[in-house]
Amino acid sequence: MGIKTEELHTLLSEIIQDETRILTETFDLVSYSFDASFGSFTPDIVVQAMSTTEVAAIMKLANQHNVAVYPRGQATGLSGGSLPVHGGIVLDLSQWNDQLDIDPIDMVATVSPGVITADINDAAMKEGLMYPPDPSSAHVSTIGGNLAENSGGPRGLKYGVTKDYVIGLEVVTPEGEVIRTGGRTIKNVTGFDLTKLIVGSEGTLGVITEATVRLHPKPLATKTMMTVFHNIVDAGKAVTLILTSGIVPSKLEIMDNASIVAVEEYEPLGLPTDAGALLLIELDGHPRAIEDEMERVKEACTKAHMADVQVAETAEEEQELWKARKLVSPAIVREKPTKISEDATVPRSKIPEMFERLMVIKEKYDVDLVVFGHAGDGNLHPNIIADKRDHEEMRRVEQAVGEIFEAAVDLGGTLSGEHGIGTLKAPFMEMELGEVGLDLMKRIKTSWDPNNILNPGKIFPEPGQKLVLTDD
Amino acid sequence: MGIKTEELHTLLSEIIQDETRILTETFDLVSYSFDASFGSFTPDIVVQAMSTTEVAAIMKLANQHNVAVYPRGQATGLSGGSLPVHGGIVLDLSQWNDQLDIDPIDMVATVSPGVITADINDAAMKEGLMYPPDPSSAHVSTIGGNLAENSGGPRGLKYGVTKDYVIGLEVVTPEGEVIRTGGRTIKNVTGFDLTKLIVGSEGTLGVITEATVRLHPKPLATKTMMTVFHNIVDAGKAVTLILTSGIVPSKLEIMDNASIVAVEEYEPLGLPTDAGALLLIELDGHPRAIEDEMERVKEACTKAHMADVQVAETAEEEQELWKARKLVSPAIVREKPTKISEDATVPRSKIPEMFERLMVIKEKYDVDLVVFGHAGDGNLHPNIIADKRDHEEMRRVEQAVGEIFEAAVDLGGTLSGEHGIGTLKAPFMEMELGEVGLDLMKRIKTSWDPNNILNPGKIFPEPGQKLVLTDD
Repeated sequence: MGIKTEELHTLLSEIIQDETRILTETFDLVSYSFDASFGSFTPDIVVQAMSTTEVAAIMKLANQHNVAVYPRGQATGLSGGSLPVHGGIVLDLSQWNDQLDIDPIDMVATVSPGVITADINDAAMKEGLMYPPDPSSAHVSTIGGNLAENSGGPRGLKYGVTKDYVIGLEVVTPEGEVIRTGGRTIKNVTGFDLTKLIVGSEGTLGVITEATVRLHPKPLATKTMMTVFHNIVDAGKAVTLILTSGIVPSKLEIMDNASIVAVEEYEPLGLPTDAGALLLIELDGHPRAIEDEMERVKEACTKAHMADVQVAETAEEEQELWKARKLVSPAIVREKPTKISEDATVPRSKIPEMFERLMVIKEKYDVDLVVFGHAGDGNLHPNIIADKRDHEEMRRVEQAVGEIFEAAVDLGGTLSGEHGIGTLKAPFMEMELGEVGLDLMKRIKTSWDPNNILNPGKIFPEPGQKLVLTDD
Repeated sequence: MGIKTEELHTLLSEIIQDETRILTETFDLVSYSFDASFGSFTPDIVVQAMSTTEVAAIMKLANQHNVAVYPRGQATGLSGGSLPVHGGIVLDLSQWNDQLDIDPIDMVATVSPGVITADINDAAMKEGLMYPPDPSSAHVSTIGGNLAENSGGPRGLKYGVTKDYVIGLEVVTPEGEVIRTGGRTIKNVTGFDLTKLIVGSEGTLGVITEATVRLHPKPLATKTMMTVFHNIVDAGKAVTLILTSGIVPSKLEIMDNASIVAVEEYEPLGLPTDAGALLLIELDGHPRAIEDEMERVKEACTKAHMADVQVAETAEEEQELWKARKLVSPAIVREKPTKISEDATVPRSKIPEMFERLMVIKEKYDVDLVVFGHAGDGNLHPNIIADKRDHEEMRRVEQAVGEIFEAAVDLGGTLSGEHGIGTLKAPFMEMELGEVGLDLMKRIKTSWDPNNILNPGKIFPEPGQKLVLTDD
């Protein structure tokens, strides 16, 4: 940082008139030092920005003085995207939530970066529309963070992920200029697609200050069912049979035996603890169509030797079924305090093989591995439960995680389906992208941010960087 | 060009063993000098590449000797994307069509760049799947060209455009390196989204040598109807009422009175020549659902003062209705030989206002303006019919086109919904993107192609460049 913190504070005070939005006390800095992933890094100063003018002035100032800037929403990210790994300024955008406009005719929402994602869907619902992307964190995470990380969610199978809904952005560049990308039209081929480049770039290419997202008509009805299988390979076959029968469920989630048992021990829901795996399936659309589709899903599962099926007849029963999936995360951390949540993703046809490889890795490194996730699009969530105070265990976990990534890439998949690279997966980037692919990404970054001040230390591995899952 | 043509020919002969795939005769060069837009530019040499190795070697050679390379499919583009405006090499990829693999479980197709787009859909259909993007040129254009231009089509309303289906690419960079972007998984957030950056970059960032595209289950049924309106404003209202009723038709096309009259004079189909406008609507999905949706579409149109409605009861009647839309282009060029086909796109709510502005422009410049297109997503096709030998008329057309672009941008829309920028719209880029936005695109281009050898003269305006629609 080419400037003293006191001087930076003075200069920031000229930009942010409201002194309460500049935080420098140690307890504030500490509370901004971590996110939902690993590691803790204390920033020099925190600024809560609430306008494009403020963000542009901050970026100009930071660029002039070579100060790192770390944009941040609610810091629910699982890959370290918002961690201030090189100190500097944390740019907190979570307070900037004043705009949430639904246009029911253009079928778009225009939002400030600090708006909570679920609030967009709630507002759209009142107009007979929906905002489909539904990351598990939707009730606490901001749309700004979702945009930076290109968040997914269960509905991704049918409706796609965050990027598929963003059609326009206002962005402050690393040099403090304001640009608008895309617009309010669904079709737009005017020049390079900066919108889709910036969404998912993990806050390294620009600070998103406003977004226009597409909305979709709310489906007339939904129907949820749970199908139970003796083993996970049968469940994998059922997934394939359902999807190749011409049905695209709105959600198609899998839970392995370990997750079923963990949930049932956490809160007895009457789940089949002797099952090898279960599928939770939601169909949505026209009520007459989903009635028929439900029968066809049952047929597909029967062909894959389904052991049992349960269909929710009421909204309460529907919620009850989804509760099982929602409780996986809290249930598994009860056993041990540290949860390493991965999202290695494989082509749909490789799901059974990925399960086999995961079981081998589990044995080999003697780790507590639980698998659940979005089976319909191959986006599994292998979670390892551990205790980060046990350094010997964590070394085994690090090796196991490395091998999970290798398995995914080897099967034609990817390091990350929806959590992003951040700090955690950066060491594995070249394995997937190759030297040239990674270099082309770096060239874009350098051409936009020559001083490397915007979210430095993310995506691109630093020389010799390895996966470290302990804080010290 | 830093090398003589003869020498270039010799060096290319070392890369392409089959001498018949290197073309240097004048009649060959002339036949590669134009596309479906305006202007004629003769290349120095044409190479028909048929492998990644060949393309990589050609790019390395061209980069070394500063020779412009112009990738080209079937040259059906409407904005000049494949025109060799600075001479050099035309890299013809249309002969490279050996790979068209459908994987029904992963629901993807992997294709060579020269595969005809409609062939992908035909192959998918045999597996109960479909490839949704359907540009009007699909039966003659190559997937490589569609990828470069991010082609749209009528089904874009419900299913999105080319970019929405591409999940993986093999690309040769301007420096002759081979990279793979994305992969076979639908979800992928590993680093910057180079796939979506390259698709739609009009061949300026890399040469696509292989693509993996998502397929979608084939809908169980389709239903087509035509609704007739006294005036175009009512038709615009009907579009809004249909879409806000929660129905997303697979196609929703509009034809104004001028296009109806032109078609009926070209081939009598019994169209209502006194109508202000008509809508052609296709619903697809579960048969029980579309039966009900059809009634709701009728209700919406009735509210918008529909004058008449016709529902296709058989596949033949369905084809007959779509024939009207398909004949617009051939019909209007019968009156005058030159068709300027624009695709300025506005937010859906601005469609009626855009129609009003177009009528004012038509009067002001006394041009033959016909409007039809994809009403559902605001992607109109204002077409001007003229005779390019009449220079006085063409000057008026140039001014009218400029004002159409201004109107679209002014209403929150875009220069191009699906045809691309190429040479034709480059002069208008800054109007939409601003200086900084355009500069950021240029920085990406420069960082990947420092010698500016790949498709130079496209997207980015040259100093003082203006729209010119005559050949001389």
